[in-house]
Amino acid sequence: MNRRIFLKSTLASAALLSVQGCNSLASQPAKQEYWMPTGDLGIVIERADGKVALVNTSSREKLAEIEGLGDLSHASAVFSRNERFAYVFGRDGGLTKVDLITRSIDRRVVQSGNSIGGAISQDGKLVAVSNYTPGGVQVFDSETLAPVLDLPAVGKDGQASKTVGLVDAPGQRFVFSLFDSGEIWLVDFSAAEPKVTRYQDIGKQPYDALITPDGRYYIAGLFGEDGLALLDLWHPEKGVRRILPGYGRGQQRLPVYKMPHLEGWAIAGNKAFIPAVGRHEVLVVDTNTWTEIDRIKVHSQPVFVMSSPDGRQIWVNFAFPENKHLQVIDSDNHRHIQHLEPGEGVLHMEFTPRGEAVWVSVRNNNEVQVFDTQDFSKLATLSIDSPSGIFFTARAHRIGL
Amino acid sequence: MNRRIFLKSTLASAALLSVQGCNSLASQPAKQEYWMPTGDLGIVIERADGKVALVNTSSREKLAEIEGLGDLSHASAVFSRNERFAYVFGRDGGLTKVDLITRSIDRRVVQSGNSIGGAISQDGKLVAVSNYTPGGVQVFDSETLAPVLDLPAVGKDGQASKTVGLVDAPGQRFVFSLFDSGEIWLVDFSAAEPKVTRYQDIGKQPYDALITPDGRYYIAGLFGEDGLALLDLWHPEKGVRRILPGYGRGQQRLPVYKMPHLEGWAIAGNKAFIPAVGRHEVLVVDTNTWTEIDRIKVHSQPVFVMSSPDGRQIWVNFAFPENKHLQVIDSDNHRHIQHLEPGEGVLHMEFTPRGEAVWVSVRNNNEVQVFDTQDFSKLATLSIDSPSGIFFTARAHRIGL
Repeated sequence: MNRRIFLKSTLASAALLSVQGCNSLASQPAKQEYWMPTGDLGIVIERADGKVALVNTSSREKLAEIEGLGDLSHASAVFSRNERFAYVFGRDGGLTKVDLITRSIDRRVVQSGNSIGGAISQDGKLVAVSNYTPGGVQVFDSETLAPVLDLPAVGKDGQASKTVGLVDAPGQRFVFSLFDSGEIWLVDFSAAEPKVTRYQDIGKQPYDALITPDGRYYIAGLFGEDGLALLDLWHPEKGVRRILPGYGRGQQRLPVYKMPHLEGWAIAGNKAFIPAVGRHEVLVVDTNTWTEIDRIKVHSQPVFVMSSPDGRQIWVNFAFPENKHLQVIDSDNHRHIQHLEPGEGVLHMEFTPRGEAVWVSVRNNNEVQVFDTQDFSKLATLSIDSPSGIFFTARAHRIGL
Repeated sequence: MNRRIFLKSTLASAALLSVQGCNSLASQPAKQEYWMPTGDLGIVIERADGKVALVNTSSREKLAEIEGLGDLSHASAVFSRNERFAYVFGRDGGLTKVDLITRSIDRRVVQSGNSIGGAISQDGKLVAVSNYTPGGVQVFDSETLAPVLDLPAVGKDGQASKTVGLVDAPGQRFVFSLFDSGEIWLVDFSAAEPKVTRYQDIGKQPYDALITPDGRYYIAGLFGEDGLALLDLWHPEKGVRRILPGYGRGQQRLPVYKMPHLEGWAIAGNKAFIPAVGRHEVLVVDTNTWTEIDRIKVHSQPVFVMSSPDGRQIWVNFAFPENKHLQVIDSDNHRHIQHLEPGEGVLHMEFTPRGEAVWVSVRNNNEVQVFDTQDFSKLATLSIDSPSGIFFTARAHRIGL
């Protein structure tokens, strides 16, 4: 429906002129601008080549590729509140601000030796990045990428810690975990001076975390022991408590091909659907009590367990060597609805904002496949190199994404 | 943060030229275009003058006014999935497609004598309008506003009925209620031929309805008797059941200054916060059981009871003559947090997508006031004539809005 308003690339150099006046054509090295509404755009990480693909979810097409983003293995992204810019967090410590209008890199900083993800503040003015090397969290101005705060994460043990599981929370806050010292830190940027609250002894080696879609519960997974650490941000004074004591690799130390992503948890109504570690199961947890209420057998070891926007469908992908499969579960009765085999290397999924379709990265096919969530028909196949993470601009409007 | 990318209006006629080539300047009556990202825009209904104000929620300013929308008393709006267009439903039966880029009316149809609201389908391709006169629902192509379906709502009584409470639901469905014949209709557009499911005898005179944010529960309020009619869209085969039998004007027929809007219900976690009818109370209902668990005393008769995006704060405004007040309640402990008096005629509120601020229409002041949701300070005051409904483009990405 919005195709008619695209500026064709042959006219795009003239588009820039509109800002400068027509007479300056000869003297300006034209930076192309492709003005369009930004509500139905997204990016796909092309992990092998340091590129992202710009996509449109209405026309279901790839609009452009943007190069030069560095090492994008395990890259993730957040969006500016106007949905014009994507901030891409690369594994090499690079923070790249991608302009979806000019289809180019607006700015880029290499802010550490090795980073693991980031977040954007509630008001959209701050971008924070968590780091493995040298550890800590760096906070930048979202407009200029100028440094705002360098926060070394020196834990109870006196050592600089790797930081993981960085998310934004309501009240202009960021939350993250210290892998080495086993802590959760809550940083409040709502006043002039940022205020840090530290929760110690939360468990051994938090390796990842999530925040519930309402921004209330922050939950860290533990690599060094079983169980999960939960902080209720509505009651931070109550401290961190342990939930699901059996969750983890377990006593028998099953072979684990890949620790599941915690961002992959699906929260649907009063239930959380959680990838079991090392088992062919999805756990169902009551979010009122944070206790397990069911286990659903699935094809193999789950990696991402994602809920459709209406909470009705749970989509599950799997660890290598079973990563050509995709299963869909009914969140209401916990039954299997559908089993798809899009191809080898199903790495990530993203639902359109209102959930009529889901986009799936199929790495080994160099394809992103788009499925109808009602009848599971394939709506489109986009040719995209080594696709991994898919991120739509609607994330700009959501807490914790 | 996005101010630097605005095209100034003096250059805007050149902006259009970029599509057409610079040489066509003299021959074209220039329609100005103001290209900008659309993620942080919104409109405010200026009810007295048939206008809408275009606003930006990052810079907190009014960008433009767009005229010629007809009778906008009780007007509401939905957005195209690319966040470029607003569809404004006027009381006079007018459906106006407003282009936020050209800041002008793209198209307008007067589709009935008297309309009451509308919705946009999950895939963004259909816009539906519910009508008082001559009743029924009209469905339009969202691109062209060409008619797609004229659905007279002839109820069990054989008469054409007024329709109310029209919402979109997942699965490319619309749901609405028949005031005169007491029915709920579910229209499924997912197949080539639309399929209508009719629920009869749901209660006397449904006058308004809401759908929960996950799109699961459709709830209609009854003018002709107490109680509410609930349809679980996950289990439409179970039919409509009655909940909250005491909800309504009650046995004593209290004087009711204004029937509260049901769209004004706040759903936060497992609780719904509901304006009592004719009483100075907000009811708290457990959404697992749909039974009342508390009543919160408030200043006067509530009209809108709205939840912040994180579900933590419940903002309440009031019926005339107490409509200069605004109260804020903590959804966790049901205590009052704040009491504001923005001015006479507090008609509507809209939270920014991630909830750092709330915009409030203060009609008699000809102002929209913007409040910080953390410290309740006033962040901005915008001069806007007779403001009523406020609608931000982020609604494009949400179910039932």
